[in-house]
Amino acid sequence: VSLRHLGEFSFIERIAKRVSVRDSVPIGIGDDAAATIPQVGSVSLTSTDMLVEGVHFDLSYVDPWSLGYKSLAVNLSDIAAMGGTPRYFLLSLAIPPALSIPFLDAFMDGMMALAGTYDVPLVGGDTCASKVGLVIAVTVVGEQQLARVVKRKGALVGDSVLVTGALGGSALGLALLQRGEEGDSTKRHLQPAPRVEAGHLLAESGLVNAMIDVSDGLLADLGHILRQSGVGASLRLADIPLPSQFWQQVSKIGLSDPYRLPLAGGEDYELLFTVSPQNRDAIVEILTTIDVPVSVIGEITETGLVVSAPDGTPYPITVTGFDHFAADPEDY
Amino acid sequence: VSLRHLGEFSFIERIAKRVSVRDSVPIGIGDDAAATIPQVGSVSLTSTDMLVEGVHFDLSYVDPWSLGYKSLAVNLSDIAAMGGTPRYFLLSLAIPPALSIPFLDAFMDGMMALAGTYDVPLVGGDTCASKVGLVIAVTVVGEQQLARVVKRKGALVGDSVLVTGALGGSALGLALLQRGEEGDSTKRHLQPAPRVEAGHLLAESGLVNAMIDVSDGLLADLGHILRQSGVGASLRLADIPLPSQFWQQVSKIGLSDPYRLPLAGGEDYELLFTVSPQNRDAIVEILTTIDVPVSVIGEITETGLVVSAPDGTPYPITVTGFDHFAADPEDY
Repeated sequence: VSLRHLGEFSFIERIAKRVSVRDSVPIGIGDDAAATIPQVGSVSLTSTDMLVEGVHFDLSYVDPWSLGYKSLAVNLSDIAAMGGTPRYFLLSLAIPPALSIPFLDAFMDGMMALAGTYDVPLVGGDTCASKVGLVIAVTVVGEQQLARVVKRKGALVGDSVLVTGALGGSALGLALLQRGEEGDSTKRHLQPAPRVEAGHLLAESGLVNAMIDVSDGLLADLGHILRQSGVGASLRLADIPLPSQFWQQVSKIGLSDPYRLPLAGGEDYELLFTVSPQNRDAIVEILTTIDVPVSVIGEITETGLVVSAPDGTPYPITVTGFDHFAADPEDY
Repeated sequence: VSLRHLGEFSFIERIAKRVSVRDSVPIGIGDDAAATIPQVGSVSLTSTDMLVEGVHFDLSYVDPWSLGYKSLAVNLSDIAAMGGTPRYFLLSLAIPPALSIPFLDAFMDGMMALAGTYDVPLVGGDTCASKVGLVIAVTVVGEQQLARVVKRKGALVGDSVLVTGALGGSALGLALLQRGEEGDSTKRHLQPAPRVEAGHLLAESGLVNAMIDVSDGLLADLGHILRQSGVGASLRLADIPLPSQFWQQVSKIGLSDPYRLPLAGGEDYELLFTVSPQNRDAIVEILTTIDVPVSVIGEITETGLVVSAPDGTPYPITVTGFDHFAADPEDY
């Protein structure tokens, strides 16, 4: 059975049946627009991302469940990076007519599983045919008090630079998948966990000066903080947290410089943020309560970006992360 | 100059420069999410639409200015159909790397021209490469008091069925464009005017029982009202408003049944709504104050959908409008 036989409106009704009714969403799927009740005293935080077949994912090694999960995860991660609580989301799909209903069901299963974890209902969207591959656009709306929202701008000279979890696992996992290999890192690429609780707690602490999620790569995303804050940074490669079994798995794919994975790999969806050194211990304590590892990887400086190799020498910065339109995309 | 040379972040900065700062948007383009201040006492109305090259538009006859204009117009129309006031929007683009900067500038010019008309700022979005043609996703957020919002559900037996403006012009314009012809109707297809003021005034009147915008075609969109309201309708073909010079232009393209254009053509973005007969004159008066034509085209009945031909005989309903995944799409 394909969408061609099921039809567009039946497919939308099929999705609508999966969504539970709630008071904060007086009008959900099935009208011209969704109506939602904003929380008094909060701002709305809205983020949208588009995932395009052949650019963001390759159906030959991404299973539909993971694809659905990840399409929502990347947007929840943006809300987390502002310190917000995600409230609801919209989904637009351009679907090749031959795509099977079991594929779409598994896709929706993965997406709704993550939506359930954070109690974020699907309230609307758009469905159309595609002659050119699957395209997924998700919009997530979250909330937070404006004074609590953490921006990219705000890093201060002397701040410590911290990151949750580990970096490089997603890029490593992708490289393994592309070679038909399995490993601990493949799940990091396929089903990245958005740091929703961590982002919210960090914002509530009032101690974080600037924050972003690592989607384009550590150097590129830190670059956004530095540019918007008008500061520089110095990082220590030896302190960058790597996923377990990183070196063993890296050896399978034979990279000339494995550090490119954490520095420029992207899609780790960890939180990268800066705090005054005197607040560092408090931050570590807060994140420990929810079992989120955190590492101090460097300091904010007046200008420039310097990375020290483990032996103390300057590490040459030849990669800056992912630019979709780069003339010479880095291959790693 | 192409995006390949300009780069993704330069392109986003180029867009950001076009957007003015305002109090209701404390955080706009350039962070992980946009922050907007909702109006106290209103619900948020959120609508999203995706436009895919080769499905929704063909770059061989749609100019980039019109494409930008229309991509926003179709979403503003959804907010209008709920009776809301549009407040801000997000734009996601998947762009073939070879697409020219002048094309993208003209696209943004068209979009921002319409955004300026309704004072709706662009607050965020996503930009990525596409290997498979241009894909545009727009999300618009509007506001209205919940009690004023007009849903698809709510049509009552005995209601009059009304529609603003004229129907069939967009489909006629598309047919002319596909044949390389010009006509009054081509602009209706390329630059449909969303009925934002009309939708808002109709909602404020408190007199409208159900409303939708005509995007998939009169019969399909009326079908949504009927199904959700649990009622039927009877329409008079002779009362359906047609654009000026409809019959002259139709003669150029040689259709076996020109009524398919207003009934199933879609993309007219007029407002279709039902009111109690005793409120009909008040509605006409309200819309006259803003120079929006309105026609009574039928009545709500208990069940079924009947269309009368101009000679009074039943018109056979063989078309129901646009389903993106229909096994046998209608060709007209």
